Amino acid sequence: MRKVAVIGIGQTKIAEHWNKSLRELAGEAALAAMFDAQVDHIDSIYIGNMLSSAANAQTHLGSLIADWIGQRFTDAIKIESACSSGSAAFRAGYLAIASGEVDHVLVVGVEKMTDSPSNEITAALATAADADWEVDQGVSFVALNALIMKRYMHEYGWKGIDFAEFSINAHSNAVHNPFARFRKPIDKNRFINSPMICDPINLMDASPIGDGAAAVVLARADVVSPGLPKVLVAGSSAATDSIAIHNRKSPLWLSAAQKSSQEVYAQAGIRPEDIGVFEYHDAFTIMAALSLEANGFTEPGQGPALAKDGSIRVGGKIPVATRGGLKARGHPVGATGMYQIVEVVQQLRGEAGETQVLRNDFGMAQNIGGSGSNIVTHIFKREK
Amino acid sequence: MRKVAVIGIGQTKIAEHWNKSLRELAGEAALAAMFDAQVDHIDSIYIGNMLSSAANAQTHLGSLIADWIGQRFTDAIKIESACSSGSAAFRAGYLAIASGEVDHVLVVGVEKMTDSPSNEITAALATAADADWEVDQGVSFVALNALIMKRYMHEYGWKGIDFAEFSINAHSNAVHNPFARFRKPIDKNRFINSPMICDPINLMDASPIGDGAAAVVLARADVVSPGLPKVLVAGSSAATDSIAIHNRKSPLWLSAAQKSSQEVYAQAGIRPEDIGVFEYHDAFTIMAALSLEANGFTEPGQGPALAKDGSIRVGGKIPVATRGGLKARGHPVGATGMYQIVEVVQQLRGEAGETQVLRNDFGMAQNIGGSGSNIVTHIFKREK
Repeated sequence: MRKVAVIGIGQTKIAEHWNKSLRELAGEAALAAMFDAQVDHIDSIYIGNMLSSAANAQTHLGSLIADWIGQRFTDAIKIESACSSGSAAFRAGYLAIASGEVDHVLVVGVEKMTDSPSNEITAALATAADADWEVDQGVSFVALNALIMKRYMHEYGWKGIDFAEFSINAHSNAVHNPFARFRKPIDKNRFINSPMICDPINLMDASPIGDGAAAVVLARADVVSPGLPKVLVAGSSAATDSIAIHNRKSPLWLSAAQKSSQEVYAQAGIRPEDIGVFEYHDAFTIMAALSLEANGFTEPGQGPALAKDGSIRVGGKIPVATRGGLKARGHPVGATGMYQIVEVVQQLRGEAGETQVLRNDFGMAQNIGGSGSNIVTHIFKREK
Repeated sequence: MRKVAVIGIGQTKIAEHWNKSLRELAGEAALAAMFDAQVDHIDSIYIGNMLSSAANAQTHLGSLIADWIGQRFTDAIKIESACSSGSAAFRAGYLAIASGEVDHVLVVGVEKMTDSPSNEITAALATAADADWEVDQGVSFVALNALIMKRYMHEYGWKGIDFAEFSINAHSNAVHNPFARFRKPIDKNRFINSPMICDPINLMDASPIGDGAAAVVLARADVVSPGLPKVLVAGSSAATDSIAIHNRKSPLWLSAAQKSSQEVYAQAGIRPEDIGVFEYHDAFTIMAALSLEANGFTEPGQGPALAKDGSIRVGGKIPVATRGGLKARGHPVGATGMYQIVEVVQQLRGEAGETQVLRNDFGMAQNIGGSGSNIVTHIFKREK
């Protein structure tokens, strides 16, 4: 397999972009990435998106966006794996270059959610769960996560407040990210006084939706112009688990995170402690805890301890959500995986400003589809 | 790039499968392909599907289907490019093996359309067109094709009846395909007396929707067991055009078909006249005509002549729709591209029974998304 480098990144602010269409958001991020990479020709395009059929009455985003950004005739398709659509698209683009078929690939994650009534978005998000065996029972996506969190608290003895630091850390980092949806810090009182959404998940346990797009340009590592900052894909893997939670060995263990992270550690030739920054999928604080455990950063049931002792902060043992995470940067579902990757690249390039991590040899991005049923993990390496 | 072989095929009958769920249809085709290939482990799975969000309240088909067929934990995603989703998924699976990352890939095209009211399906299919600039005007997908056909008849002087042989040929071949939706032959009178759907497209110009799934197992060509029939991927390419018809240089020329077919001819080292069977995308008879022209089988405007003089029949110069095509085998949109590929493989293996073509060294499958805006073309070669 050929080595692959990320040679350009771009992103839009996550917001309620009522004055920009889906294609305009995608185009803004894509052209920023192409400008950053100093390329004006792309061989193939991969779009990560989950909801355009339900929320925008538009499928066929490959053709739509290729034409919009001036790359008509280019091979262009959409990839979907619920909330991990963004990084699944990245992985498909990575494989296209690794195969030897193409030299320059554009990957765009895009989602436009805030034009639709929130009950429609809630229903659309629930299509990530099992329509016949879960949603049919009336359960929403946040309810599935609440069931997991409740069981986790019961098993390991944590209280709701023990998850506060995940949220506080995310908001504190987002203050310094101009692309983040929420740039105000929060404290423990704000967390405690947040309205309950679905017991035990309160408003500050949950990430906000939003409109946004993030993009990268990928290239063969051996033909990157010398002047450009070079970040290599050191590991790429994805794994699934049963789509319905009740079919899993344990609802408290992200098997697909464990499998894909073990594969990328092996590909990169490193261990979890070598990761200097980890952009994880904190759609809910319970997912933050489970991610730290399944990826080998702590023992089962001990995720919240890493939040409470400051290990997850910039400067800590395993900095997470350094640009705000899903919680504060925002979670435009099919675009989120691409935001995570763009942010890891910012860190490895040393462009993360006030929240720059200290160790930036290796960074990891992990994107979760459904309640743990489709997990895509990448490790990036800074080329010295 | 590593060479890739198709080592197993499977399909369900196309019908109104009200007693089978989406996952059951996909599973039936997938397990048939795995049985045919004699493999029980798959490294990664690519699902081609267009409408599950709109028609089945289910996204996330990768995880759903991987688990259902006993491949839990396998990397599995969905690919969408409107009606060319099936072969776009095939192409992604092909690149995954070509890259060297995996050895066995399963590709499944699946669509379940007949549970939904037809006005909802009409709206869902229109999402393949440009939501902001075409559908917004009230145009349906068949209306877009009718506009193209009307202009074509005006430019080149053909009458509606001149398209009849496309339909007659398809129905005549489908009689012998047990998986086809419509297995009754039609004659010229039946064509002439068909109700008009959207002038000049009558019922017999248009392909029927349906529920169905088709699948293949792909493998590294160098590790295929000697006893298995081997069909190699000799060329793979995809190209886009503007999603809106009014933006194209000409509404009567499939630029994306021309570009992708020229690329696969070059990859396979052959010319159009070397193709012994061509499974084309006859969603409407006008698309059949345009396909024959853009792929180099005849001059611009002369597609209907190939139908009228019998060239498109089994035994003719360029046999098409040999298992019934979209017109008679049926068009379960996101699955169609995989049916086409399965059928070409049947021909190259010599398993096409009464409609077996004479020359089966090279076969071509071409799948069209939108009204020509995303076209995926593959050439397959029988290994001697």
